[in-house]
Amino acid sequence: MNFSSKLLETAVAEFAKLPGIGQKTALRLVLNLLNQDKEEVERFAGSISKLRNEVQFCGVCHNISDAALCEICASPKRNHQLICVVEDTRDVMAIENTSQYNGLYHVLGGLISPMDGIGPGDLKISSLVERIKNTDVNEVIFAVSATMEGDTTIFYLHKKLKEFTLKISTIARGIAFGGELEYVDEITLGRSIATRVLYENSLR
Amino acid sequence: MNFSSKLLETAVAEFAKLPGIGQKTALRLVLNLLNQDKEEVERFAGSISKLRNEVQFCGVCHNISDAALCEICASPKRNHQLICVVEDTRDVMAIENTSQYNGLYHVLGGLISPMDGIGPGDLKISSLVERIKNTDVNEVIFAVSATMEGDTTIFYLHKKLKEFTLKISTIARGIAFGGELEYVDEITLGRSIATRVLYENSLR
Repeated sequence: MNFSSKLLETAVAEFAKLPGIGQKTALRLVLNLLNQDKEEVERFAGSISKLRNEVQFCGVCHNISDAALCEICASPKRNHQLICVVEDTRDVMAIENTSQYNGLYHVLGGLISPMDGIGPGDLKISSLVERIKNTDVNEVIFAVSATMEGDTTIFYLHKKLKEFTLKISTIARGIAFGGELEYVDEITLGRSIATRVLYENSLR
Repeated sequence: MNFSSKLLETAVAEFAKLPGIGQKTALRLVLNLLNQDKEEVERFAGSISKLRNEVQFCGVCHNISDAALCEICASPKRNHQLICVVEDTRDVMAIENTSQYNGLYHVLGGLISPMDGIGPGDLKISSLVERIKNTDVNEVIFAVSATMEGDTTIFYLHKKLKEFTLKISTIARGIAFGGELEYVDEITLGRSIATRVLYENSLR
């Protein structure tokens, strides 16, 4: 693109580094910012550098937090014997939004992915083992994506946690609510038949 | 959304103010920035506030520029008797990319749109009239979008420029190169028949 200003070109190039943002979208966003008040733009730029410089990660569950201990880990209302292992903070938010879970979390910071050069050492796995060793946790739930990387991570963690007396589970996989059978892929449908749930009053 | 950190929430809210960026996309972008080096993030935030604080607009054509006079207006290689009137800097970039135009520009900064409360007074129209009055411009091309707002703006400008001895034209509208007839809308197709172009050696 032919930019009429070096400053404009730099700002567009910085925006275009973000995932899913191309040159044209970057230009649109930058021109939008340019039309706003200076204070508004300062607030935008400031919020980002402030976040990067002042953000903390909870010392226990490694979730993004404003303090050394996050609100969930600090809450006495939570069940401290139950840990849900997730990939990143977005998964914590998704699960919190369900209002169905009352335990703590453990944010791995990624999944094992040899293709991307991410091994167990890059994730918060040893701190999970330490946590289970040193506290009275009695149940661990794996809530990771149903992908190759997710399965590899679960397999690895499962082996690591074998030595402890723990209830270990993974979230149920199957057909989504509202999903139509004919559009479900074969693997999901096959597995959801194999792992069918018995009605309580039926024959066993 | 349930954010685990106030700083994160603020940064996501700022991003989500941008056009076409929703909460989920904003979160994805912010988490991406959070994973980058501090210097990288400073560069990102700095480029935006620097742009907003130091950007200049060319005193003649109102295009975004690094100096009081933009490169195009300052160039002696350009045809200074020809002005192309456009909506914003993106249109200048688009036309420059064609390498088909050698005149100057005039950036209106928008189009007349009563629906959005934008009247002729909000655009750089009086400076266009002054420019034509004070320099030896002999041709003006309107290169604005073929929308209601574009047509209104052209109509208004045309009336304003009637008093001058000028060649006035608008860019050709019709079927795009590579476009298939059956998918073209009726108005475009109808107009492109009405404004058909005669072959040079045909009867007139």
